[in-house]
Amino acid sequence: MVSKRIQKALEGNSAIRAMFNEGREMAAKYGEENVFDFSLGNPATPAPKALNDAIRDLLDEADAKGAAGSLGIHGYMANAGYEEVRQAIAENLNERFGTKFTAHNLVMTVGAAGGLNIIFKTILDPDDEVIVFAPFFGEYRQYAANFDAKIVIVQPNLETFQPDLADLESKITARTKALIVNTPNNPTGVIYKPQTMEQIGAILEKKQAEFGTDIYLISDEPYRELVYDGNKEDFLTKYYRNTLVGYSFSKSLSLPGERIGYVVVPDEAADAEELIRGIEISNRTLGFVNAPSLIQKAVARCLAEKTDVAFYDENRSRLYEGLTKLGFTCIKPEGAFYLWVKSPVENEEEFVNEGKKFNLLMVKGSAFGCPGFVRLAYCVSHETVEHSLPAFAKLAAVYGLDK
Amino acid sequence: MVSKRIQKALEGNSAIRAMFNEGREMAAKYGEENVFDFSLGNPATPAPKALNDAIRDLLDEADAKGAAGSLGIHGYMANAGYEEVRQAIAENLNERFGTKFTAHNLVMTVGAAGGLNIIFKTILDPDDEVIVFAPFFGEYRQYAANFDAKIVIVQPNLETFQPDLADLESKITARTKALIVNTPNNPTGVIYKPQTMEQIGAILEKKQAEFGTDIYLISDEPYRELVYDGNKEDFLTKYYRNTLVGYSFSKSLSLPGERIGYVVVPDEAADAEELIRGIEISNRTLGFVNAPSLIQKAVARCLAEKTDVAFYDENRSRLYEGLTKLGFTCIKPEGAFYLWVKSPVENEEEFVNEGKKFNLLMVKGSAFGCPGFVRLAYCVSHETVEHSLPAFAKLAAVYGLDK
Repeated sequence: MVSKRIQKALEGNSAIRAMFNEGREMAAKYGEENVFDFSLGNPATPAPKALNDAIRDLLDEADAKGAAGSLGIHGYMANAGYEEVRQAIAENLNERFGTKFTAHNLVMTVGAAGGLNIIFKTILDPDDEVIVFAPFFGEYRQYAANFDAKIVIVQPNLETFQPDLADLESKITARTKALIVNTPNNPTGVIYKPQTMEQIGAILEKKQAEFGTDIYLISDEPYRELVYDGNKEDFLTKYYRNTLVGYSFSKSLSLPGERIGYVVVPDEAADAEELIRGIEISNRTLGFVNAPSLIQKAVARCLAEKTDVAFYDENRSRLYEGLTKLGFTCIKPEGAFYLWVKSPVENEEEFVNEGKKFNLLMVKGSAFGCPGFVRLAYCVSHETVEHSLPAFAKLAAVYGLDK
Repeated sequence: MVSKRIQKALEGNSAIRAMFNEGREMAAKYGEENVFDFSLGNPATPAPKALNDAIRDLLDEADAKGAAGSLGIHGYMANAGYEEVRQAIAENLNERFGTKFTAHNLVMTVGAAGGLNIIFKTILDPDDEVIVFAPFFGEYRQYAANFDAKIVIVQPNLETFQPDLADLESKITARTKALIVNTPNNPTGVIYKPQTMEQIGAILEKKQAEFGTDIYLISDEPYRELVYDGNKEDFLTKYYRNTLVGYSFSKSLSLPGERIGYVVVPDEAADAEELIRGIEISNRTLGFVNAPSLIQKAVARCLAEKTDVAFYDENRSRLYEGLTKLGFTCIKPEGAFYLWVKSPVENEEEFVNEGKKFNLLMVKGSAFGCPGFVRLAYCVSHETVEHSLPAFAKLAAVYGLDK
């Protein structure tokens, strides 16, 4: 007696989460240290020390104030979140990116997943189209389906994994309501350069004029701060007027379990006022109500903090170099914590299954709308990377890559 | 360019939240102490001291463990929540209510609002029917609409505000997927007695047999522990096999901003296994992903704690007696923290507006599907109750109730 949608979901379910569970079973069987689980994007670095200290301070300050103090950190606030938290984040963004936001432009959300869903609920009617660049985070499919909208997939350049902009232009229709951009990218680790973003902006402007519509560019930004090799943190609202941002602190502060992020609606976006109010209403009516209260206040005190990017950079170099040397073809990651590897055989599920024989857990590219590749999440310990290399060597040998 | 649904919502929006904002504007204008805001169900008592202490202990324990400690309180876990948290809650319920749950029967949720939405997503197909007992929490309409289901309203007995069971029986159809029960009730404060629950169970059993369907009774339980006058805390799974529970710690631990609750699916419910897996999937795909992590662990350490029920009881007595003495007709609350008052004029919006002239903020009954009445949320300070009585006296005089 479950719904038809959920019946279907029970058959499919998330390849990533399934792999996560499989990994835990393998770890129980073979020992944690003998399983090389590259399946889940679960940060490996601890939250900055300042986070727990901020929470302690908030508790102490609240206790000193009695009942009002408790209600001030655990009670209801406006559905958009605490005004002072939103203002602090707005000012931090302005300082870093030269924007001009105020608290009014922000809605605090239950992570980026919550943020994307309330944006979608606010803008999507049934049969609207949302464009995504393959390969893409598979959950976008579910989020669009929640509102009966369709995902339209734009192909990548299979050498660089930059989006094919000619394909983008050809896929925009009068029903296109949004384009999701995720840079630094999950699953490829690629960053879309300023020039690419400018070109995307120009295409969207042109198509808006052609169809007389508004097309929102939704920037899904959980990896904004995870950039390597001198790449700069970027903020996409400057490239295109109708840009909405969905941010998460999950990766930048290593607290994915806490579900805390925000949405930004710039003043210059079409119907900005209605969007902001619609997003607040959606936050309430989808059942989020508001982002968790105490952690809202805690992250507002940690805006100058960042996770240990050098830790991931070390994994990135070691894994990229190690696998390339073994004969695998990899896209060199510029950001995030994923390595995108070409499967030595066309059907990458075969490759994933072969990897399991050596206790290597990888996620098939088809989970990201891009078969023929696999994703390795290198948000693991240095030891896991190091000890996985002999297993990858054995896997390379299966396919004769070492010849 | 917002969606059609949101356009409509922008026109309507929540009467309660609108009143909340109005109250804050009035407080700024007239001074906090001169505005009697009975509009929002925002707890007035602080969280038990044990809660902040539990959070401190969790932080200290995590810090002592280093990176693993941080990831253990702020990192991802299974979408259903921490196993040990669910097990602790299951054991607490078993002890108190003689049930036989394990961690497997529970999914931790982003409050009861999150819980109801993921239950709805799991069981509802478009055009399915969800029965509610008037008066009811207005957000149920939105939650059902999220999944294109219809709300079917069963009328109350207008003297006792117990549900009209003959009306319930007549409203069940082959498309009835669920009945929501909320006891102690928002907005009436009424408790449905064991005998009523048994009768409801019998009607549902009969109708299931008649239509060859499964009908889930969904118990929305944010007020479970707020009972007065020797009423006992009750747990509804024992009255009917297909009972699902959506619980929130918002009121019992005074932390509504933290968004923490759980769903219970008993083993004996139809398709229990599919329901549990479907609810986990819905938790992920609707964008909640999981209930906030640190606060999950904190509430698990506070299961023996309870907010100061005596505080609300004092407000209840004072307000009920005060208003009754002034000539208002009130339903005597048995639980929760709401007083349900008959409007002296048929159109209760007139009455609400008249109240505002005396800085009294009440919510119109039509927001709960039951015009002709208003709701007073007495989760306010004793002073607010006390100082509101002269204002109510003036309001009574307007309608000649004092004669």
